[in-house]
This record gives sequence, C-alpha cells and structure tokens, in this order.
Amino acid sequence: MNRSVINFSAGPGMIPHDVMIHAQKEFCDWHGRGTSIMEVSHRGQDFIQLAKQSEKILREAVGIPDHYHVLFLHGGAQLQFAGIPMNLLGDYTRAHYFQTGLWSQLAVDEAQQYAEIIKISDTSSTQYTTLDPETSWRWDKNSAYAYYCDNETVHGVEFNSVPRIDLPLVCDMSSNLLTRPIDVTQFGLIVACAQKNLGPAGITIVIVSDDLLQARLPKPYTPSVMNYATQSARDSMRNTPVTFSWYMTDLVIRWIQEQGGANEMNQRAIKRSSMLYDFIDASSLYHCPVDPRYRSRMNVVFDLHDAARTADFLSQAETVGLLYLKGHVARGGIRASMYNAMPMEGVERLLEFMLAFEGR
Amino acid sequence: MNRSVINFSAGPGMIPHDVMIHAQKEFCDWHGRGTSIMEVSHRGQDFIQLAKQSEKILREAVGIPDHYHVLFLHGGAQLQFAGIPMNLLGDYTRAHYFQTGLWSQLAVDEAQQYAEIIKISDTSSTQYTTLDPETSWRWDKNSAYAYYCDNETVHGVEFNSVPRIDLPLVCDMSSNLLTRPIDVTQFGLIVACAQKNLGPAGITIVIVSDDLLQARLPKPYTPSVMNYATQSARDSMRNTPVTFSWYMTDLVIRWIQEQGGANEMNQRAIKRSSMLYDFIDASSLYHCPVDPRYRSRMNVVFDLHDAARTADFLSQAETVGLLYLKGHVARGGIRASMYNAMPMEGVERLLEFMLAFEGR
Repeated sequence: MNRSVINFSAGPGMIPHDVMIHAQKEFCDWHGRGTSIMEVSHRGQDFIQLAKQSEKILREAVGIPDHYHVLFLHGGAQLQFAGIPMNLLGDYTRAHYFQTGLWSQLAVDEAQQYAEIIKISDTSSTQYTTLDPETSWRWDKNSAYAYYCDNETVHGVEFNSVPRIDLPLVCDMSSNLLTRPIDVTQFGLIVACAQKNLGPAGITIVIVSDDLLQARLPKPYTPSVMNYATQSARDSMRNTPVTFSWYMTDLVIRWIQEQGGANEMNQRAIKRSSMLYDFIDASSLYHCPVDPRYRSRMNVVFDLHDAARTADFLSQAETVGLLYLKGHVARGGIRASMYNAMPMEGVERLLEFMLAFEGR
Repeated sequence: MNRSVINFSAGPGMIPHDVMIHAQKEFCDWHGRGTSIMEVSHRGQDFIQLAKQSEKILREAVGIPDHYHVLFLHGGAQLQFAGIPMNLLGDYTRAHYFQTGLWSQLAVDEAQQYAEIIKISDTSSTQYTTLDPETSWRWDKNSAYAYYCDNETVHGVEFNSVPRIDLPLVCDMSSNLLTRPIDVTQFGLIVACAQKNLGPAGITIVIVSDDLLQARLPKPYTPSVMNYATQSARDSMRNTPVTFSWYMTDLVIRWIQEQGGANEMNQRAIKRSSMLYDFIDASSLYHCPVDPRYRSRMNVVFDLHDAARTADFLSQAETVGLLYLKGHVARGGIRASMYNAMPMEGVERLLEFMLAFEGR
C-alpha cells in the first residue's frame, strides 16, 4: 500500500488510517461471525447492538443531553435541506437563514419550496469572504427557526461563535461536527453528513431537541423516511439504513474519542490550518481572500496572485502525491481540506511543496 | 476467515465471495491510487469514470434502452414510495396499486399521503399467500400509473408474469432485479434497492422512461435530491452519493455478467428454490402456505406444522452455521432468502439440516 499520497479531498474525504486498516482486516469476517457486517440484516441482534453503541459513543463525544434525539439517516445532508422545513415549520410560514456560502445558499433555495425565507444576512456580494456583523442581522420572532451553516467548505468561511438569535437555532455542521467542543443545548437541531470528519458518505446525523419536535407537526407530504419523529421511534430504522457506512462512522467516532475527543480535534485543526494560513499570508505568490476572523479550520481556500499558474500548481502537486487540491467549481482556485483524519505530515508536505513551487 | 457459515439474511444479504475478497484487497488502495475509493471526491475523474462504467454495465445487464434514464440514488427504496407519486402523479389525483404483501402495503400507505389510491387487488385476506386472477382486477384509465411489487420478501410471493394493464407500469424489483431477464419497455419505472441481489445497502436504482418523465411535472414539494429529472441531469450526483455502496454494486453487477447474466441467475434461482420447495412439499414436518404458482424464487417462507418447535429449529440451525433463517416479524415462521450470491452449497447445507431436524 502506498502511503506517500496525501488526500485533500473536500469530501468524501480521508478516513483515519488506523480505522481503514481495522475495517479491512474484518471486512469479510466481522467479529468472527463468518460474514461481513455489510451482509447482515439491520434487524439482527449484531447490527442493533452496533447501532445502540454508536449512538451512545456519539452522545458522549458530542455531549448530547437525553432530551435530544439522535438520528442516523440516509439521503445526504442535502435531503435535510428539505427535511428541516418539512419537520420544523409547523404552523409557521416563515424561516430565517444566514446565506454565507454555497451550502447555505443551496439550503435557502431548497427551503423556499416550503416557506417564505428571510435572509438574516447575505454575504454573496463579498464573494462569501466574510460574515456580516451582528448589528446588521435582520430577524424577528415570527419565524419557525434560524438556520446557518457553521462551516462553508467551498468558500472557506467558518463561524467563530454561535450566533445569538432568540429563535430555535438550526445548524448545518456537515463539515465541522466533532472538530471542536459545542454546547448542544444552544441548538434546536444540528445536521451533519459523515463524509468529512466522521466517516464515509451514506450517514447523516441529525440531533434534534424533543421540545422542538413535540411543538411542530410535520407537513403532510413528508416522506416517512424523512419524518424525524418516525425515525426516532424506529431507532433510525424506518427503512434499511446504510449499514456499512454506519459501521465505519462508528469506528471513526471511537477513533476520535481515543485520540482525545473534540478538544484534541480542535487543537489539531487550529495547528494545521494556522500553519497554512501563516505561510500564505507571508507569501507573495499565494493569497487567501477570506477575512482572518472567519477563516475555516477545515477548508483553507487560496489563490495564486498569478491565476494563470493555478493549473500548473495543481498538476505539479499531483505528481508529488498531493491530491484533490482543486477548488470547487463554484469558486475555483485552490482548496486544502484538512479534516480530523489529516495528519500533521499532510500539512508539512503541502507547505514543502508550496515553498518549492514559489521558489521556481 | 470462516466460510462455514451460510447467510440467509433477507437483506442486507450475502454478497458474492469473490467480490468481497476483491474489495478487501483494494480497500485501502484502490487501483494503486494510494487511497480508498471511499475517501475520494465523487467529483473527481476516478469516481466519475466508475459511475459512468457502472451505468453502462447495468444497461447491458438489464437491457435498458437509451430512452430510459438510469439513476443511482440514496435514501433506500422506501424513500421512493414517496418519490414515485411525487414525480409521476403530474396532474392526476389517482394511482392504482396491487397490494400483495408487506412491501406493497407500505407503498400504498405512503402513496396515500399524495393521491387517492385504488387497489387493483388486495390479497391481505389470504395472509398474502396467493395473487388474485386477472379477471378480478379493478382499474381504469383515469390514473397516473399502476404499481406492483414483483417479489414480496416477507410473504414469499412473486409475480410469474408482468401484469397486463394499460397504464404506465411502475414496479418495485428491489428483491429480484437481475435475477431473471425482463423487457424494460414494458415498464414506465422500475425501482430496486441494491442490498438483496446487487450489493450492500445505500444504492437504489431507478430506471424510468424519458416519455413518462417528460409528461409529468413533479409536485412542488419534491426535494431536489428526490427529483428524477434533476438527478438525471446531474448523473445522480445532485448531492454526494453513497460512493462505496455504488462501487460495491458496480463490482456485483460485473460479477453477475461474468457468471452469465440474468439468464444464468434465473436458472440458479429456480434450481435453489425448487430443491427447497420440493423437499418441503414432500415433508410431513415442514409446510409452505404459498400458492405454488406464485412462490418466490428468492425468499422461501415456510412453517413447521408444530409451530412450537420453530424456535428450536432456528437455534439449532444457528449452531450449525445457518444464519438469519427467522421469518420477518410481520409473518413469523421461517424464511430462507437466497439471492444471486447464494451458492448451491447453501441450499444443500440447509436441506441436510432440515432432514436431520425432521429425523429427530
């Protein structure tokens, strides 16, 4: 196996090496059962046990109180762009959204199918390079909830604190759940797909307060699979879950806990991203347009002052084993995604290459 | 690895042994890239190439004409119980359904959220042990489509021909796609989850005629991820697909083709299930209540005349490595699910055990 490659994919992204080796070893024979975990019924005792334990360890790792439901869903976080209004609008006809990058923009577009969407703030005119100050936010109490995306992977913008808004807060943490400690009680609902920091594609975690669920009747057109109350009552098995992705996510959360949990993940993320931002800011070749107060710890986006050299940068990076550094098509440029599984060696290798490229 | 176990799980079910070994080998290093296929972006050339090739091989294996779209979706087949009416009702307010077992019953329940559902036939009063004759079917032309489930895994009932109804036919082939040759042009839409005959959970295949999609405007509340036209235009990547499940499904379809395709799968299924049905019918201990004309080639459900011995049968079976033979909770009894991956040895081992148990 070739470990000389460093994978900067924005997602599906790198999975901890130890987890991959562990999963490979028991791929055909899980816990000595003579079958893969992938080949067994989700209704069998083995898988039910795994599901229960993964909820338990997730509750410990994130710090989820008992009065919150934890769901392991499929369909991806984007399905929840519809699922959130379907489940949480209740009798309200309006909801408030921060539009701070591509992902919250897509969430707004989707939610507009179901309700009037008021933008608390819209930073598209800055090319999503900063966040608006609290004093400029527009919101009122006649609203089902306030939605934001905590980390925008495409534009490299991350909230540095939880917005203070007196509405049930709904947060997309698809790219930063379990990368820093949070206080779940500040939120009505948290949604996070697994394929950045928590495992492979196929599992989307929803953490939702029981109070909020009780207070809102789902829309009559909500598919059963997307109904949070139904899924909670059925332990996220209203239908067959993506069992292998669930198993991998379970292994990754255990790995996070073994490494020191969300606190340790945060220290590592700050160290990795700061090294890169500091280097870029001191360089005359590279340039990061994002407001330093809101720079993502996960996705470092940057450009070359001479944009014509970008393709050359990317192809040379690939030849030395630095993969998937191309920026998202909606933004272009360069992006280094460094999730929980990224070792320090990955950043060091990238910096070494960037230095050499600058010297040429 | 312990290959002495035979896995009769109804789904997620057995995956061909050769496919498992192949996937295990390249689990951490796919095609020499130094990363797993699970860890790379679905927007990268590698995965896009895989996705294109898997559509091509599926089209060959099933025989799907160009004027049909092929989608690889997530959310499970049950999400499509809502997706089908959302996408296909158009201006119609009614749809027709066969209710022939638990799965079509759940499809009826879900569809009733969106339209008036007329039952063409309802065999619940027979405990879903047979199908009604064509002469008793109730349907008319004022309807969006006619829906049926080709094989009912819980009750062990399978259609032995395509129903002749002059409406766009919608068929759930979740448990028998690629287990026998079909003529796709007889259908408006075919849906099939992967986790029975085609791979692990996480991929649901939708095959839909372009004519039908063009003729029906999706309901305004259809989530983008569930919108067939949107997903087709985006090559099933409106959002991140379940990449590893897609990869596994690709490997299984290739394996099916290497083995001789749908024709060969059908021969094997008939051989496996006939051996078991013949044995049961000749026995004074075991009993299959399903009408011989409609017995499933995939899921052989049976009972002990002395039902009190069922638990004993199941626990003794487990001690000799015959796993997951317990019937679905909605029916009870015993069920042997034998999908494409089940070797003849599996049936032989089961018969040997059943004979020994009968002797006691």
